[in-house]
Amino acid sequence: MFFASDNWAGAHPKIAHRLTTEAGGFASAYGTSALDKKVEQTFNDIFEREVAVFFVSTGTAANSLALASVGKPGGVIFCHDSAHVFCDECGAPGFFSSAARLSPIAGKDGKIDPVSLERGIRAVPPAFIHAGQPMAVTVTQSTESGTLYSLEEIERIAGIARSHDIPLHMDGARFANALTALDVSPAEMTWKRGIDILSFGATKNGCWCAEAIVFMNPEQARQLPFIRKQSAQLFSKTRFVAAQFEAYFEDGLWLELAAHANAMADRLRAGIAASNHARAAWHTSANEVFAIIRNDASKRLRDANAQFYDWHEIPEHLHEAIAPDETLVRLVTAFATEASEVDRFIEILG
Amino acid sequence: MFFASDNWAGAHPKIAHRLTTEAGGFASAYGTSALDKKVEQTFNDIFEREVAVFFVSTGTAANSLALASVGKPGGVIFCHDSAHVFCDECGAPGFFSSAARLSPIAGKDGKIDPVSLERGIRAVPPAFIHAGQPMAVTVTQSTESGTLYSLEEIERIAGIARSHDIPLHMDGARFANALTALDVSPAEMTWKRGIDILSFGATKNGCWCAEAIVFMNPEQARQLPFIRKQSAQLFSKTRFVAAQFEAYFEDGLWLELAAHANAMADRLRAGIAASNHARAAWHTSANEVFAIIRNDASKRLRDANAQFYDWHEIPEHLHEAIAPDETLVRLVTAFATEASEVDRFIEILG
Amino acid sequence: MFFASDNWAGAHPKIAHRLTTEAGGFASAYGTSALDKKVEQTFNDIFEREVAVFFVSTGTAANSLALASVGKPGGVIFCHDSAHVFCDECGAPGFFSSAARLSPIAGKDGKIDPVSLERGIRAVPPAFIHAGQPMAVTVTQSTESGTLYSLEEIERIAGIARSHDIPLHMDGARFANALTALDVSPAEMTWKRGIDILSFGATKNGCWCAEAIVFMNPEQARQLPFIRKQSAQLFSKTRFVAAQFEAYFEDGLWLELAAHANAMADRLRAGIAASNHARAAWHTSANEVFAIIRNDASKRLRDANAQFYDWHEIPEHLHEAIAPDETLVRLVTAFATEASEVDRFIEILG
Amino acid sequence: MFFASDNWAGAHPKIAHRLTTEAGGFASAYGTSALDKKVEQTFNDIFEREVAVFFVSTGTAANSLALASVGKPGGVIFCHDSAHVFCDECGAPGFFSSAARLSPIAGKDGKIDPVSLERGIRAVPPAFIHAGQPMAVTVTQSTESGTLYSLEEIERIAGIARSHDIPLHMDGARFANALTALDVSPAEMTWKRGIDILSFGATKNGCWCAEAIVFMNPEQARQLPFIRKQSAQLFSKTRFVAAQFEAYFEDGLWLELAAHANAMADRLRAGIAASNHARAAWHTSANEVFAIIRNDASKRLRDANAQFYDWHEIPEHLHEAIAPDETLVRLVTAFATEASEVDRFIEILG
Repeated sequence: MFFASDNWAGAHPKIAHRLTTEAGGFASAYGTSALDKKVEQTFNDIFEREVAVFFVSTGTAANSLALASVGKPGGVIFCHDSAHVFCDECGAPGFFSSAARLSPIAGKDGKIDPVSLERGIRAVPPAFIHAGQPMAVTVTQSTESGTLYSLEEIERIAGIARSHDIPLHMDGARFANALTALDVSPAEMTWKRGIDILSFGATKNGCWCAEAIVFMNPEQARQLPFIRKQSAQLFSKTRFVAAQFEAYFEDGLWLELAAHANAMADRLRAGIAASNHARAAWHTSANEVFAIIRNDASKRLRDANAQFYDWHEIPEHLHEAIAPDETLVRLVTAFATEASEVDRFIEILG
Repeated sequence: MFFASDNWAGAHPKIAHRLTTEAGGFASAYGTSALDKKVEQTFNDIFEREVAVFFVSTGTAANSLALASVGKPGGVIFCHDSAHVFCDECGAPGFFSSAARLSPIAGKDGKIDPVSLERGIRAVPPAFIHAGQPMAVTVTQSTESGTLYSLEEIERIAGIARSHDIPLHMDGARFANALTALDVSPAEMTWKRGIDILSFGATKNGCWCAEAIVFMNPEQARQLPFIRKQSAQLFSKTRFVAAQFEAYFEDGLWLELAAHANAMADRLRAGIAASNHARAAWHTSANEVFAIIRNDASKRLRDANAQFYDWHEIPEHLHEAIAPDETLVRLVTAFATEASEVDRFIEILG
Repeated sequence: MFFASDNWAGAHPKIAHRLTTEAGGFASAYGTSALDKKVEQTFNDIFEREVAVFFVSTGTAANSLALASVGKPGGVIFCHDSAHVFCDECGAPGFFSSAARLSPIAGKDGKIDPVSLERGIRAVPPAFIHAGQPMAVTVTQSTESGTLYSLEEIERIAGIARSHDIPLHMDGARFANALTALDVSPAEMTWKRGIDILSFGATKNGCWCAEAIVFMNPEQARQLPFIRKQSAQLFSKTRFVAAQFEAYFEDGLWLELAAHANAMADRLRAGIAASNHARAAWHTSANEVFAIIRNDASKRLRDANAQFYDWHEIPEHLHEAIAPDETLVRLVTAFATEASEVDRFIEILG
Repeated sequence: MFFASDNWAGAHPKIAHRLTTEAGGFASAYGTSALDKKVEQTFNDIFEREVAVFFVSTGTAANSLALASVGKPGGVIFCHDSAHVFCDECGAPGFFSSAARLSPIAGKDGKIDPVSLERGIRAVPPAFIHAGQPMAVTVTQSTESGTLYSLEEIERIAGIARSHDIPLHMDGARFANALTALDVSPAEMTWKRGIDILSFGATKNGCWCAEAIVFMNPEQARQLPFIRKQSAQLFSKTRFVAAQFEAYFEDGLWLELAAHANAMADRLRAGIAASNHARAAWHTSANEVFAIIRNDASKRLRDANAQFYDWHEIPEHLHEAIAPDETLVRLVTAFATEASEVDRFIEILG
């Protein structure tokens, strides 16, 4: 019963297998092989426009280099106050962008509140050098809280960013899960609603290591080749990432895997709703569930080897809602989660 | 006929295959899985002492983070003037270590000249703040010129570094090739001769992506976990690197692959020595050959689809030795190079 | 009527004059002259212990280099959410310390709330690499809100920092004003209560340019000479700073100037308390006054050439307290503020 | 007898005095006062065009921020191998420009050899990401060796820079000395010959602390306000720098002071030429003299309290020319050097 994180799952067999079939033979390095080029074209197809794609090694790298590419001296990046870039990347987004400052913006359900965003950007007025200058807005889809921005919500954030002349980045570590949950196209969830740069994550959804930065406007990516190399993120045998992406996209495998993970989360959500020992902490979509669970049930589950994390970032409004004998926990499903494991979890939960 | 670089070869089937067998199941992420721990133990065995091991994504990352771990304000890194860290990493070693300055040291055959090194370090005297402070010496084994430091030469460099109280790093992008060519043990080629930190490269020798930083003294690695995360180099599914290393080390595969690559280079060297249209530019060991080749022969080879690079960093002493109708080229063999391809190359060379 | 900032005042005549008397003759550069050494000794006397002193060019530099000196990879600096280092230094504290992340901590009256600080530090637990590692706590005395930490409050913050094994820095841009207002000694307000590093500002209190970093434990300053030089903060003719400090400290001039500025602020406070067109926004000590002022009175004052800033960082609890026809303004007095100017301001205010 | 460095001299009385007369009264801070604006206009007049001027605290800051303003990821800065930016700034130019790599270029007499420069830039070809990308060329006028680029030499370097589409920076720590020695106008020595950005130093020539970055094309300076603030180089009371510049430029004082320093160097040169115990190491102009001096004479001088530095960066071609009982020394004259002191030095030299 593995619900600790979707990165505990290994790779999907089709994706791992592709590394075997691609292993033979020589091919030019550093992103120039035929397979690299073929996969770049697939990205164009998926996004319904010519995009610029750069493979990197981690989601943190994707976010950090994407933001670095729009860097400015004294730059300020606006993100949700529970965003991965702010809380969980050990300062990497600042490190790669000449110490850009991250300005945390509040907002319910893990989503940036537009009014707070507007206020936050206005606190860095163009003529007041001391505060720095606005540099980018970044949203996470699906969010750290397992929720989703609707297309309209993305559009609203994009409008604010555009009105201040700064780009909008999306951290898509769980891009496919969001896409499937919203049942929209990649284009609709990104550039058609104002996303300029996307961290496209595939590792959590069935790859070993496949992360890409996608620029909706290739013009804006001109410095990225140098940024990536200087950042030690240019793989020599890029084929091994391209091969994973090839298998990932083939016959819609990626959406299938994400849909499965989401369905397993739905199953969890249903089980929790019916439980007397747990309740949803808030409504989530996609493949994460946050639940308030009785400590005795939690102990029972852990004794049965269930893997999941207690969640320590407790939203203000829940401080009083969680009783002393309860704990907020996070449960994440993955492409490899089996329905029987979910059912067993729910059964033990009681 | 692929002699452009050893990173044009894919992965060895046994290594690629291991990713298939490891793909199933869940395991904890970020370097904490049983397989990660097992491979760390293998490193201890190989180096005959307890070492600290950190997987990263690229050789540039290994070098840069290794050097960053011994960073000091105003730090100066001493390296050969043709070193990869100086010429081919887009400034990454400086970028990751608060802009440490690289001081290029001359030396024949791609190897740091000890007298020049001593002079170079003395040019940064402790009491003269303006020059900065000595921070590290780094050597490459085998070198960018395809040559090897003897154990005595390593020891001499190490003595100089130690006398100035700075650590000695080894860029081992082709560590196995050097080891095999010298026929010594990993311990002998490193800590027994004064190497403190090693960039252990396996990608060029048959892996997809397997690079590690090895600290001979684990105490000195205390900040590395944070450096690695801040540098966006902490893979989530580290298992995929560990699995490659596991297969790489199993039954001495790594040494076998390196020995093969070296043997193919020997075969090339012999063919060139016997050719009327080419001659060795200098003596190399391991798996790289530098040859001065007649332009018509070069054209003939390229017309036959041979892949190799003209080499533009021409050592001073060869400026006059290369005739107008000749070119300096680099030929690299790999674990996957076949003898028949070498023979065909030599045959076309004439 | 100049109440915009204490840095609008020039230099005190005695301090400016000292630059004339020191101008003659040659002396060794880069902090090694007899005058530099003499002033360093004066710092020892003032702080009643041997301290390490480093002159830098700006308060931002003092804060940034002080924090950089305790830098760690992935470091997190805890500061008040209205702190100068967070809001007004264009990201410099992060820039100089390898992109340390600033974690803003809430607290009434511009002062870090100890409970929130403890919670904030605990959110960066030692074993959770992703969040980084706690690096320093920094307080401002007097605060950006014109308030003062009591000695007990400093001690409490220091205890929290110490319990997490991180140093405590004080931004003393208005150190003398705080000292005078509290009527305590420099030792009492710093190391006796747990301050490890101090940004000692004299520019705002009558110098042209005299800022110093003071390490209470000289051992901790070992890297500072290199940090300062690499940061382009090592003046050649350091004498010109030393001379200002010499005059500043002579016969207690510095405390006299600060006491005058504070007295002028008291006079303002009294006038505002008696006014029908303004009221104190909150209680301040030292030389800053925050007032809620009627817009017509504000216009009247500006028409009469009074200089002061509207204050846009409105504390949450005041959002409703300020009527539409009112504005929050900041008034700062300086060593050069004349009582007659204060009286005129109050008279026009009505 | 002070010949250690021109920064051992204090400030010229007229310049120091101006700080006294400017000390009174309030004025707006951060470069916005009437005096700041007036001095900016003076720079326009001096350079015969509209320039953008930014005061900073040190020459190292001027160089570093000027170079940072043209920063690129993986940027490579080309400088002479004895340049101050390379040898004497503790890595600051790299630190402020995201770790730009400095590529040292050889050249006689402290001047970049154009052929070597062209070769050096070509070693960083646009399509080869691994090497980084050319970012700037920087020359020093007068050079670290006390020599001067002729206008034609500057123009030739500028042509090379332009042909590679990178800007040309001049380190003018001794700008006035060079100007006076060449007897040309500021415009002629800079933008009319292709200089894009200038570090304009006045500290060594009679100010306490007056350094400016001058952009010949103000358009290129758009990010500098943020760079300067993030770099902790924005003085609050900029008036104190402006006042020094005002006095410096008034009635041509700056050229007068430089001419005096140069004349004192001429006097030294003549004395050394006539000496039996010393000889010129190479021909210098401006205010620096490099001499090979007999050790007994050197001892005699030091016993008589003469201040000067032995020079350890001995050009290759002099290695054999300096006898065991001789030493290479550097002698620097300043605005405050008196003829009688030079004469005494020569007399003791014998």
